[in-house]
Amino acid sequence: MLENMPRTLEWVPGSDGQPDTLRLVDQRRLPRALAFVECTKAQQVCDAIADLVVRGAPAIGCAGAYALALWARNEWRRQALRARIPTSDATLFMTMLESRAKGIATVRPTAVNLSWAVTRCIDAVRAILLKPDAATQAAGLEGGMVTVAQDILLAEARAIEAEDEENCRLIGVHGAAELEHMGAHMGRPLNVETHCNAGSLATAFYGTALSVVYHAHKQGDIEQVWVDETRPVGQGARLTAWELGRAGVPYTLICDNMAGSIMRAGKVDAVIVGADRICANGDFANKIGTYPLAVLAAQHEVPFFVAAPSSSFDKKLASGEDIVIEQRDAEEVRAGVDAPEGCNVYNPAFDVTPNSLVTGGFITEEGIARPKKKRRWL
Amino acid sequence: MLENMPRTLEWVPGSDGQPDTLRLVDQRRLPRALAFVECTKAQQVCDAIADLVVRGAPAIGCAGAYALALWARNEWRRQALRARIPTSDATLFMTMLESRAKGIATVRPTAVNLSWAVTRCIDAVRAILLKPDAATQAAGLEGGMVTVAQDILLAEARAIEAEDEENCRLIGVHGAAELEHMGAHMGRPLNVETHCNAGSLATAFYGTALSVVYHAHKQGDIEQVWVDETRPVGQGARLTAWELGRAGVPYTLICDNMAGSIMRAGKVDAVIVGADRICANGDFANKIGTYPLAVLAAQHEVPFFVAAPSSSFDKKLASGEDIVIEQRDAEEVRAGVDAPEGCNVYNPAFDVTPNSLVTGGFITEEGIARPKKKRRWL
Repeated sequence: MLENMPRTLEWVPGSDGQPDTLRLVDQRRLPRALAFVECTKAQQVCDAIADLVVRGAPAIGCAGAYALALWARNEWRRQALRARIPTSDATLFMTMLESRAKGIATVRPTAVNLSWAVTRCIDAVRAILLKPDAATQAAGLEGGMVTVAQDILLAEARAIEAEDEENCRLIGVHGAAELEHMGAHMGRPLNVETHCNAGSLATAFYGTALSVVYHAHKQGDIEQVWVDETRPVGQGARLTAWELGRAGVPYTLICDNMAGSIMRAGKVDAVIVGADRICANGDFANKIGTYPLAVLAAQHEVPFFVAAPSSSFDKKLASGEDIVIEQRDAEEVRAGVDAPEGCNVYNPAFDVTPNSLVTGGFITEEGIARPKKKRRWL
Repeated sequence: MLENMPRTLEWVPGSDGQPDTLRLVDQRRLPRALAFVECTKAQQVCDAIADLVVRGAPAIGCAGAYALALWARNEWRRQALRARIPTSDATLFMTMLESRAKGIATVRPTAVNLSWAVTRCIDAVRAILLKPDAATQAAGLEGGMVTVAQDILLAEARAIEAEDEENCRLIGVHGAAELEHMGAHMGRPLNVETHCNAGSLATAFYGTALSVVYHAHKQGDIEQVWVDETRPVGQGARLTAWELGRAGVPYTLICDNMAGSIMRAGKVDAVIVGADRICANGDFANKIGTYPLAVLAAQHEVPFFVAAPSSSFDKKLASGEDIVIEQRDAEEVRAGVDAPEGCNVYNPAFDVTPNSLVTGGFITEEGIARPKKKRRWL
């Protein structure tokens, strides 16, 4: 299905004195070039996340986890030596690891996956250092507990990536079953609209919203995808368009402000988007422009779905009011439209959509959490 | 108030063998350069309209009228000589003028002002040629009726431009009075959002939506203006931002997809847009993105106003379903967001907003046509 799709992240083990490397698709350069950025240090991963080399909530979660592994495996030893700390001091290792983790987790504030992944890695190390099992103790006796921790961090990052891929595959399977129902009800393949890039590039593989599209397309239920260009960074026009083209799924690019026209003309059967953080009550943050799209979908009775792995849920936040919205550089907006130099700009990277507008439901790896109101197409 | 604003159109009478010239602000080059395009032939004006050198419903109406004057004064004589027609043959002049008028009126289909202005010019000539008054007869005896027609066409174009300026001024006065009421009700100056450019550049002078802003700002009722960038051509980012900056009105540029965020945060007190064609029932066409903005405004109970001169009303069209929406080149969309080469694009230049969403009212030179429902701020 996605034979031609590159891995968003790839861990390349070090050899012959070369350090371990995290290789990232450079998403800034798509669709013009499929290029890669290689990181051997945690800070390089942080920069890559800040600069949108890698983006998408699940993908930056994976990247954050690998950043910790890079720090532990490529940087700890040199930093310890410089600070005259024994390189085998597991307590100091842990302290410095946690400090590094905080820095990584806050590079971008809105998506919960980044802090979720980093916390999961820290917890894994802490658990094993505090209560080592027999095998770990044996390994620790041999190479020291720091070595054990270094291995755990890589194993945890790999696990997060693998689980994300499997979760995204399952999201695709569940979502495609839903679209199959809708298609059967309508007696034809569907026209689906999506915003930003919730595709393979935004995850370990498959994507969230686009995993649904890929799986539904494979079973013949997709007529075409309406791709919102997604200003100001153009993740729709650059990344989703590129992905769909590579996967052989028909699509039409529109400006974000054209969604009203196509919905009013009855040309959209469903909207599927991703999410950066989903609160306990179902309010969620996603790429700027998602909320107006949800308002339009509700206005036109077009089912609106959110596709996201459980790592995007933040049960600690009661409602969308508590979500921190990242503000980005004004130049992102000014440059794209040739605006007056230095003019005043408001550039929130995300917006919050209230749960009531998720009329289709949340598609996760566990299935579909539906709104209480009966679906129109059943 | 607008001391620094250039004239959108300027008629420069010929002298010393130089032909009459219509000088247009080249709106493609703003905000980088204030440059001008000079037209001496009707086709040059048509090209300028098609290429968006001049745009905005009232402004292209004026341009269309001047195009006819250019044809009559600079081109008729040569065409008649080439076709071996007597240059004084008023009947053939009229036939060719009408043919030229048809071509001008259809360069862009959605704004009614273009065909309205061209029809008005043709009617003026026809009326005077069919039923000349004493003065016209005397002038006709001296220089021939074609000469009379040439003068009438220029006079009519000048009248259309002058009336548009005065209508726009009155729109500003009426609209500002409305915003004064709202500001008094709220006890503070207002945050107004606008889409595209319904400014001085879109009209002979003052603008429609921005005339309201300019007049309200002068009386202290504007805190700032939210400027939608207006993809794909960026009339908001390039033209409205430039105009407001030049007029000293504070503004903040946003991407079109950010309107939902700012409305949800209570940062918008009113939306004011222009219109390209208003139907008998109040449905209207305006720049793509207007309809979703109106849906959002209704959702957030933000009063939504349409500011337009009576030349933008088309009583012959019963409802918005009858409006022809211009489709423009895909490259407008692709180029601005670095999309894959040759990818499929949908690029309607306008959308239609139903009358029910004009919750504030229509601001014309005659006053404000309000919806039946009581205004919230009174």
